[in-house]
Amino acid sequence: MDIEVLEGVFDANEIIAKENRALLDERNAFMMNLMASPGAGKTSFIMKTLEGIASFPSPSRGEGQDEGDTSAKGIKAAVIEGDIAGKVDSERIAAMGIQAIQINTGGSCHLEAKQVNTALKHMDLEGIELIIVENVGNLVCPAEFKLGEDLKVMILSVAEGDDKPLKYPLMFSESHVLIVNKIDLIPHTDFDMGRLEETVRKMNPSVELFKVSCRTGEGLDGWTTWLEGRVRNGRQS
Amino acid sequence: MDIEVLEGVFDANEIIAKENRALLDERNAFMMNLMASPGAGKTSFIMKTLEGIASFPSPSRGEGQDEGDTSAKGIKAAVIEGDIAGKVDSERIAAMGIQAIQINTGGSCHLEAKQVNTALKHMDLEGIELIIVENVGNLVCPAEFKLGEDLKVMILSVAEGDDKPLKYPLMFSESHVLIVNKIDLIPHTDFDMGRLEETVRKMNPSVELFKVSCRTGEGLDGWTTWLEGRVRNGRQS
Repeated sequence: MDIEVLEGVFDANEIIAKENRALLDERNAFMMNLMASPGAGKTSFIMKTLEGIASFPSPSRGEGQDEGDTSAKGIKAAVIEGDIAGKVDSERIAAMGIQAIQINTGGSCHLEAKQVNTALKHMDLEGIELIIVENVGNLVCPAEFKLGEDLKVMILSVAEGDDKPLKYPLMFSESHVLIVNKIDLIPHTDFDMGRLEETVRKMNPSVELFKVSCRTGEGLDGWTTWLEGRVRNGRQS
Repeated sequence: MDIEVLEGVFDANEIIAKENRALLDERNAFMMNLMASPGAGKTSFIMKTLEGIASFPSPSRGEGQDEGDTSAKGIKAAVIEGDIAGKVDSERIAAMGIQAIQINTGGSCHLEAKQVNTALKHMDLEGIELIIVENVGNLVCPAEFKLGEDLKVMILSVAEGDDKPLKYPLMFSESHVLIVNKIDLIPHTDFDMGRLEETVRKMNPSVELFKVSCRTGEGLDGWTTWLEGRVRNGRQS
């Protein structure tokens, strides 16, 4: 007789991740797990993404509604912010009029499914089509903990260098989308986009790659259009 | 009767950190634990530091020695490289003619004292005055694990932004030295050095702060001169 062995913390996490997934499926909500190093630009990227997706009319709400009714326009999104400490990020999101909930991990370097579960249960998910989870700034452990997400997105900042995939292989191979941010800094660094792409494609041939600058706005349209398609038309598991 | 409770992994780590410290004291070697986010420039900074300290004549070896004898010049250093995977960093250091040993943590997001202990026992410490430990790229967990070091040094890259102390408070408050790297990028970012300094000084009034660019070389002399003083004249615990 086979005995099933639960491998401690990872299996326990996976069970709750599946519970999150069921909860999201029931609501028909799409969840994106955003991961990156500290300072790669996660919060700015979320804000630019929220601005971008606000321009897509919502098919489920009808297009004949009054133009002043902002709830009738765009993808309705909410944000879960994960940080060691503080609530500066969720305050920035909330200032945009977007529902945001802050998780403080109290020292832990990644989010776990249980924390996201608690957040989901505290949120008003009525009509929410997209939930963006900003993970703790770290290229290591967040890649190991499933949250029940549809999509794993990672950001690499140009300033971090093009050699990072070799040093943090799990994150680069697990992500469905790689956002290369701060491309406006390329002329001031030794960053080689060709070398990065070559390395990443070897590790993760199906990765979607977007080159953007949250500072100048370059490349963000392509990303938000792609995301809209995923949120509205399909899911990746 | 008081019962002493060891708090699991941290206390176990601390015991081995003390063992490392005793081993270093016996050798009169100074150990620096270098921590930063991925891509903040740790390895480049180590290489620039090694170049800089090579110019300080060693008092213990006499100044009358032959100029061609490079062992007679500078602080003799060795490097312990910590990475999830790969050995690209230790190869870069070894190519400089410096003794380097690579630790692969195999997924773990920080170095522990035990790994450094193993490395120290495998190294040739004869005449070594300075050991630089490059921790895994991460602003969270490395701050929690003592290695037996004399000095905790962290690097913040300008591209990461001036708000990082609030989000990773333990790292910024535990570090003895804060290196702000990539200052050549300041004109191309929204980085506010005054704001950074104000935030950091509130959390860590005694921190030594150096502003450098490993790309242009700016500010590195001040750092290597300071480090030479610490290695040759005193230790911080």
